[in-house]
Amino acid sequence: MNRQAGKSSIYLEEPVYIRSSASIVGKKEGEGPLGLLFDMAGDDDLFGCKTWEEAESNLQKDAVYMALEKAKLKPEEIRYLFAGDLLGQSIATSFGLSSYEIPLFGVYGACSTCGESISLGAMAVAAGYADIVACVTSSHFGSAEKEFRYPLEYGNQRPLSATWTVTGSGAFILGKQPGSKPRARITAVTTGKIVDYGLKDSMNMGACMAPAAADTIARHFQDFNCVPEAYDKIITGDLGSVGQTVLLDLLREKGYDIAERHMDCGIEIYDAETQDTHAGGSGCGCSAVTLSAYILKQIEEGNWKKVLFLPTGALLSKTSFNEGQSVPGIAHGVVIESVG
Amino acid sequence: MNRQAGKSSIYLEEPVYIRSSASIVGKKEGEGPLGLLFDMAGDDDLFGCKTWEEAESNLQKDAVYMALEKAKLKPEEIRYLFAGDLLGQSIATSFGLSSYEIPLFGVYGACSTCGESISLGAMAVAAGYADIVACVTSSHFGSAEKEFRYPLEYGNQRPLSATWTVTGSGAFILGKQPGSKPRARITAVTTGKIVDYGLKDSMNMGACMAPAAADTIARHFQDFNCVPEAYDKIITGDLGSVGQTVLLDLLREKGYDIAERHMDCGIEIYDAETQDTHAGGSGCGCSAVTLSAYILKQIEEGNWKKVLFLPTGALLSKTSFNEGQSVPGIAHGVVIESVG
Repeated sequence: MNRQAGKSSIYLEEPVYIRSSASIVGKKEGEGPLGLLFDMAGDDDLFGCKTWEEAESNLQKDAVYMALEKAKLKPEEIRYLFAGDLLGQSIATSFGLSSYEIPLFGVYGACSTCGESISLGAMAVAAGYADIVACVTSSHFGSAEKEFRYPLEYGNQRPLSATWTVTGSGAFILGKQPGSKPRARITAVTTGKIVDYGLKDSMNMGACMAPAAADTIARHFQDFNCVPEAYDKIITGDLGSVGQTVLLDLLREKGYDIAERHMDCGIEIYDAETQDTHAGGSGCGCSAVTLSAYILKQIEEGNWKKVLFLPTGALLSKTSFNEGQSVPGIAHGVVIESVG
Repeated sequence: MNRQAGKSSIYLEEPVYIRSSASIVGKKEGEGPLGLLFDMAGDDDLFGCKTWEEAESNLQKDAVYMALEKAKLKPEEIRYLFAGDLLGQSIATSFGLSSYEIPLFGVYGACSTCGESISLGAMAVAAGYADIVACVTSSHFGSAEKEFRYPLEYGNQRPLSATWTVTGSGAFILGKQPGSKPRARITAVTTGKIVDYGLKDSMNMGACMAPAAADTIARHFQDFNCVPEAYDKIITGDLGSVGQTVLLDLLREKGYDIAERHMDCGIEIYDAETQDTHAGGSGCGCSAVTLSAYILKQIEEGNWKKVLFLPTGALLSKTSFNEGQSVPGIAHGVVIESVG
């Protein structure tokens, strides 16, 4: 049994179904262009909690709860959780998911974590290790600013290349069986490498991550011997407007033109003009909630048949930044197709 | 194809081989009871680097390098890396492994990460997703004290229940084929749940993690319908002397007596009397280097035929600690058997 495609991809001969998904976001995301599509949007970003971190934990808990409800499943029917977030030691996950008492594989790929969790979850299901798994990731503007930059109270200025961390969590229930109304199917995975172009500007993460996205996309085309036209959309996680330009340029140099079919969740989730978000949205939650609320909807409605979904991550910490290290990137690709 | 055992375990019908492994440690570990068994021990814990974090990154790079050398493999023959560490945003991994240019699944399970990386690596190989993978984890006393407690320059006092973070990294090359001289085989996996008894003392992590270890061990026995006597050794990661007592008591309450066959890597790695390490060693590196240098050696020499290896993790961050949160635990179990 060889499921390997090319040098770094996996082909799932029997696809894995996305049986259900759910998204919960903060106030700003609820007011954005995709606002009406999310399952739930908070009135304020504390969601009734005392700290940003506790609020983010609750986002994960609620996203899993809603996804289970939609799939008509109970927590004990989920064999494994694949989950992570951006905070040091993934505390949003640890404190958000403990009450479910489901065996957990904690994953970390910065803002690419949504892609990594869905990759590993789909691989576990396709291999027969589990009938049903849940994949969940989150981010929160308040907890992320505190973790990576300055506490919100400091009131720092942000350059135009900066992105705005999405407050939100997306959960996905994957299964070997389609269930009554599957949203889509996962048919392939291309795993990211750490790509480091030596950029050091943590306020321009789009440019830091774009080389990793270009690398994974190009390897994907090589592994499957295919062209950009095989996909209705090629969707990155959170490159934003600055990173998008870099990505398109890098891929042209590699001989691929994806300009016509490229979309970036970070660009879609806010109206940069009116919402003061500069280059776009970012964070584990950005690609996760956009996948659940918008991308899967387009696939269900038949507008797109096959997409390459590719969350992008910037591998930095405040310690690595303060010590003058660069900001390497990573991007995990997942092929998502319509059920029909 | 059903590889599921019980409610939360996986049985690998075709075992996955540990083709090679390597360990590198700091000065203190090199002077401990297992000192002569490690592949390499540093003269000082900076290993020629400018920061603790850079030193820890180099530990991961060197451990992978040595493991590849021993298996006579080149980096391009490794399809995936499964790696992680204790630092915020896993920076030891990001900066240590980028030069290998191997697709990476970043994992986080606190000090249980060694068990999680080997679990997922073995699952990927057994499913045919990869012929060969590498699993690597690390910790560093200097970087961990700075990350979780106080910078070393502060000179804080440590209570007797505190453990000492191991400076070290262990790497494991797993393969479908045994290679010329496999060290052991992996035959089963039992995945940890987040277990939270509400303990809040980050200076007594053994007690915080023991309930999670007890939970995974008991579920393992139930999933495989077996008894402690099925194993020559049941080996936890870093409970230390305080956590060991709690673990044995909790398992007795569940009807299992493992006292005769229990071993803890954190207790073995230092001489608590002469090395001033209090309750024992801890950190991702503790179980990883002990597995590579000591446990696999005992298995190779025929002293043990079958062990349950169970790294234990305390899911805290300085933020969660400062916000008054508890310290939940998690423990990932892997069954390792002799090749013969």
